[in-house]
Amino acid sequence: MREEKQQPMEQVREFLIAGDVPGALSHLERLHPADQAEVIAGLEPELRVALLPQLPRETLADILEYLKEEPRRHVVMELEAAVLAPLLDRVDTDVAADVLHMLPPEQAEQVLLAMRTAPEVTGLLRHEDESAGGRMSADFVALHKEWTVDQALAYLRRTHPDAELAYYLYVIDAEHRLEGVVSLRQLVVAAPEEHIADIMTPEVISIRVDEDQEEAARILQRYNFVALPVVDEKSRLVGVTSVDDLMDVAQEEATEDMYRMVGLTEEESVLRPLRQSLLPRLSWLLFYLVAAFFAALTVNAFESTIEEVVALAVFMPMIVGLGGNAGVQTITLVVRSLALGQVEPRQALRVLRRELVIAALNGVVIGLLIGVAAFLWKDNVWLGVVAGLATVLSVGAAVTAGVLVPTALRLARLDPALASGIIVTAFTDILGFFFFLGLAALLIERLT
Amino acid sequence: MREEKQQPMEQVREFLIAGDVPGALSHLERLHPADQAEVIAGLEPELRVALLPQLPRETLADILEYLKEEPRRHVVMELEAAVLAPLLDRVDTDVAADVLHMLPPEQAEQVLLAMRTAPEVTGLLRHEDESAGGRMSADFVALHKEWTVDQALAYLRRTHPDAELAYYLYVIDAEHRLEGVVSLRQLVVAAPEEHIADIMTPEVISIRVDEDQEEAARILQRYNFVALPVVDEKSRLVGVTSVDDLMDVAQEEATEDMYRMVGLTEEESVLRPLRQSLLPRLSWLLFYLVAAFFAALTVNAFESTIEEVVALAVFMPMIVGLGGNAGVQTITLVVRSLALGQVEPRQALRVLRRELVIAALNGVVIGLLIGVAAFLWKDNVWLGVVAGLATVLSVGAAVTAGVLVPTALRLARLDPALASGIIVTAFTDILGFFFFLGLAALLIERLT
Repeated sequence: MREEKQQPMEQVREFLIAGDVPGALSHLERLHPADQAEVIAGLEPELRVALLPQLPRETLADILEYLKEEPRRHVVMELEAAVLAPLLDRVDTDVAADVLHMLPPEQAEQVLLAMRTAPEVTGLLRHEDESAGGRMSADFVALHKEWTVDQALAYLRRTHPDAELAYYLYVIDAEHRLEGVVSLRQLVVAAPEEHIADIMTPEVISIRVDEDQEEAARILQRYNFVALPVVDEKSRLVGVTSVDDLMDVAQEEATEDMYRMVGLTEEESVLRPLRQSLLPRLSWLLFYLVAAFFAALTVNAFESTIEEVVALAVFMPMIVGLGGNAGVQTITLVVRSLALGQVEPRQALRVLRRELVIAALNGVVIGLLIGVAAFLWKDNVWLGVVAGLATVLSVGAAVTAGVLVPTALRLARLDPALASGIIVTAFTDILGFFFFLGLAALLIERLT
Repeated sequence: MREEKQQPMEQVREFLIAGDVPGALSHLERLHPADQAEVIAGLEPELRVALLPQLPRETLADILEYLKEEPRRHVVMELEAAVLAPLLDRVDTDVAADVLHMLPPEQAEQVLLAMRTAPEVTGLLRHEDESAGGRMSADFVALHKEWTVDQALAYLRRTHPDAELAYYLYVIDAEHRLEGVVSLRQLVVAAPEEHIADIMTPEVISIRVDEDQEEAARILQRYNFVALPVVDEKSRLVGVTSVDDLMDVAQEEATEDMYRMVGLTEEESVLRPLRQSLLPRLSWLLFYLVAAFFAALTVNAFESTIEEVVALAVFMPMIVGLGGNAGVQTITLVVRSLALGQVEPRQALRVLRRELVIAALNGVVIGLLIGVAAFLWKDNVWLGVVAGLATVLSVGAAVTAGVLVPTALRLARLDPALASGIIVTAFTDILGFFFFLGLAALLIERLT
């Protein structure tokens, strides 16, 4: 059973406030590293600074592995420079590379010089943060294809691999090229004298070091793998990226999409310092304001029409709002389908056709309802016709934008989610007003 | 390197259209089961029906494992009843249980009677679909704590466990209670004569069979596990749920949240048959229509005010739209934070305070801009005051709804994402109009 979430943090905090660091330590040591990391992340900096230097190095290394991006950065900054090198020697190479990326370049270089694992970690440092190489670890077990099962097992016993994921053992040739894969299970159940080359699965699915981390996550999920080998341009095995890193990727990407679509930055969080959230949010609202200004100009152009038939002002927001909601439904569907790889940009026209049919049918139903309501309420059949027709047109335009805006962003190699919700709403507003008030202006004699 | 995605499907289809089933088969057999599953899922039913009976049983079993929910259902319905029992004996027990759930009850019972693995699968059948029990598999390896490492290895060699996830070996006592865990790696590197009880990690994090699958996914992610043992109310080990099942859960939940927030059902997809999408989407738009009707009533109540100052109709949509966008930003943030467990409902007031400060500051900036624009454009300082003030109030109300609606839904044990976007937009519309037009009506003498 899991530990309760809030309790340990409160207790550790109480010990620290009372100045009882040993009490805090002994309480902390009973926890799983993941829970220790949560406690550390949640402490106030002044309390944490008192605790960190007292933690055994092994505990600190475990905690560092489980800390998320932001708290990890804080902890690293609060540590003394001298402890960093031996500490980073104990964590997974990908975590070490991540920490070195956080440091100022000169300090990173100094720490690296003092590290035992510098060769492996240096290899990781040159890769883009969001590439497969940026997410891989150099802690993997590689067996040579000419070894026997017995030799391989002896090798495993001798090196005592600390790697979390020694489940897949990759098989390489003399040039370090990836040749196959053997699961630990296969090794255990095989006869000791068999050759690795004979029990390995020769076709290994791998990813190039420079490909996107999302692609790595997609492959992992598609094939139900827990780890994926990463190779360089000469098919040499350079690292392994694993499901625990990439499970976060899928979730982060989903969050990013959701936030971007409504004009929040991906770093937004209810826990983020207020002043950091203020400007990014304001800027998208200002973008909307500019767009809304054009919508207002549209309305303004028809001021005399509204003056003649004030009932138009009553139905106007309803029609535009319906268009906006229909458009946001479509755009959400298209953005998510693109993200999940359920649809490719070249299928945009097929999706557009589908969405337009739905929009047309829904538009007709709702247009009819609005039309009838307008007729009954304001006792003018033409107001009903104008409102109904404008609804159909407005929903149709919104849905078209909902398919085309994210598809165009993807084709331009931008993120389809890039605040497309706000763009589509703004676009729909302008067109909706134009359709409704324009039709009204055309038929003004029938409306008065 | 991966296979190209579209090619194999087209080629298999061409063979089948030409009536060359053996050609299709031999082409299919070169693919990874995950890719075979994709080909099978993408084929037209009439082509698939020609292919399915010809597939070797082992291949079909592999394909069944990799098929997603919907295509899996189709394939199962297209298979002859007689092949089902031997087929389900070959797939993972959780897949077998899933398939049996798809069949009509009488047929499921008949198939189950003919299955060799009926005892294990029956145990899985009684759990809720979205619980940890519903996602677990009965294919796991359990070692007895009094065994030696040598005995355990011999057991593994003898039973030749077919389970994908024999990486964690769970340790049980005589009553089948979960006592510890040993990784395959620990077993391999340990001395042969050691006892399992001595090398095992005694504290195992597990989940109760009746807990939610989301909770299982959260634990797995928190502790970076690839599998999680599932226990019954007496702490007896009854199954294992693993990362490949639960990686889908996190992604499905994100998609569900995104869709629900804009009034799409979670089954929505660009590939879904049109007639199935029509009604669910229409119903949310109708909900919005009803709400918009109340907004229209609000505007209608101020018809005489608008008649006197038509410029109000120009600024009205802008103010309401800004409120809507600000509200949707907040609601997206709150829904996602609740889903990721970054915030608890009882912290709602703190989040509300934060959002209100942001809203107030942003509202003041934007209100000032709108106010100045209104003054410059329509040459009336009071129009500026009304517009600016209404913007601040409208954004504030929207943000308040954006925090409180999802929190209230969560407290009522409903999904916070339940179309809250549409609810908030509708609510914001009504209040926005009321603030703006109400203020205008109060100050009508200054505006004319």
